[in-house]
Amino acid sequence: MSSKGEQTRHEIVGRALALAEEVGLESVSLGVLAAGMNLSKSGLFAHFKSKEALQLDVLQEASERFAREVVAPALAQPRGEPRVRAMFENYLGWMDSRDRTKGCFFVALTHEYDDRPGPVRDLLVKYLGDWQQALAEAARIAVDERHFDGGVDATQFAFEVFGISMAFQQAMKLLSDRHAKKRARAAFEGLIVRSRGTSVRPRAKTRQRLKAGRGTTRTRED
Amino acid sequence: MSSKGEQTRHEIVGRALALAEEVGLESVSLGVLAAGMNLSKSGLFAHFKSKEALQLDVLQEASERFAREVVAPALAQPRGEPRVRAMFENYLGWMDSRDRTKGCFFVALTHEYDDRPGPVRDLLVKYLGDWQQALAEAARIAVDERHFDGGVDATQFAFEVFGISMAFQQAMKLLSDRHAKKRARAAFEGLIVRSRGTSVRPRAKTRQRLKAGRGTTRTRED
Repeated sequence: MSSKGEQTRHEIVGRALALAEEVGLESVSLGVLAAGMNLSKSGLFAHFKSKEALQLDVLQEASERFAREVVAPALAQPRGEPRVRAMFENYLGWMDSRDRTKGCFFVALTHEYDDRPGPVRDLLVKYLGDWQQALAEAARIAVDERHFDGGVDATQFAFEVFGISMAFQQAMKLLSDRHAKKRARAAFEGLIVRSRGTSVRPRAKTRQRLKAGRGTTRTRED
Repeated sequence: MSSKGEQTRHEIVGRALALAEEVGLESVSLGVLAAGMNLSKSGLFAHFKSKEALQLDVLQEASERFAREVVAPALAQPRGEPRVRAMFENYLGWMDSRDRTKGCFFVALTHEYDDRPGPVRDLLVKYLGDWQQALAEAARIAVDERHFDGGVDATQFAFEVFGISMAFQQAMKLLSDRHAKKRARAAFEGLIVRSRGTSVRPRAKTRQRLKAGRGTTRTRED
């Protein structure tokens, strides 16, 4: 495809993403998109054989932006807790960027696609899995660096960050809670402090650990 | 309205709720509903002057079921941590009841209505606020009962339970994580243990508390 063609295609995807952020990905209409761009519907179809093909590209575009704005800058941070913190803060920034009505595109799609099987759902699941793994990997490194306790379950850590993020988006967008970000950060701090390894781990587990001769790792810096 | 009329009306609402759980509340079609019930569309309109009136009743019906299945049985539990735990467990049960494709109706509506102003959104916000307050009130009582530490922020507690619940629903429905419930419970245990008051509270706060002569309350039973 010519460079001009690539450019038009990229522009279509960008506009479709903006539209999908407003109305959802299923409601993106090729007709509305074409009209907004002075393209005929068949001109638009020259770039995308189907609405689904466009949806997949929109999702990919969002994922690339996410990688650029959230993940990459966090990976540039020092290994361990600083990187984990950067991932969370960048994600809050991503959810709260542009304007207050947006939130995270992927979270919004969660409910649009959880009952709707197909390639779009599959790709969404893949991207959410990638993000979950990036968070878990950062937590695992924090364990290696002894910033987090050896007993931290990295996948559980990622699960809890997902929860905090979704509660943030709901509080910010739907419930208009002006303390939403403060609450999200407080929840995250609780998770971080707990992950550093402390006396709050369930007794049985502590006992197991002591029995195994591993003791309790404490690396809090304060 | 006659008792027969009331009964029909109630049946319409029940069917509309079941349909809305599948397709969302905006996509509930009066035509489809009427056809499924051997009613004419105008017969259905005799009960509901508008689609919005029906949507509000559907939301109210869901809220009444929620009060009956989640809140009321929890309120029958002893004050303090047992009641807090019952609220969470009942809520997990609510999300995981019927079949695995349902989840919590209110969570699903979060993204359907966060950008859609109007009476339906207002009522949804009210119901979510009621649930948040019920959770916060249960946490406040747990503080009174000295099951939770005096420094616990009950609203923050409720925020975090919302997060865990949403992560559970996403993991269960979208990500098909068969450990979803185990993860939700582990996250909740972390929150409970932290709320009991331990050494993991940020140092500055501990210092404040000690300075205020309140010490650290520990009421763990294990």
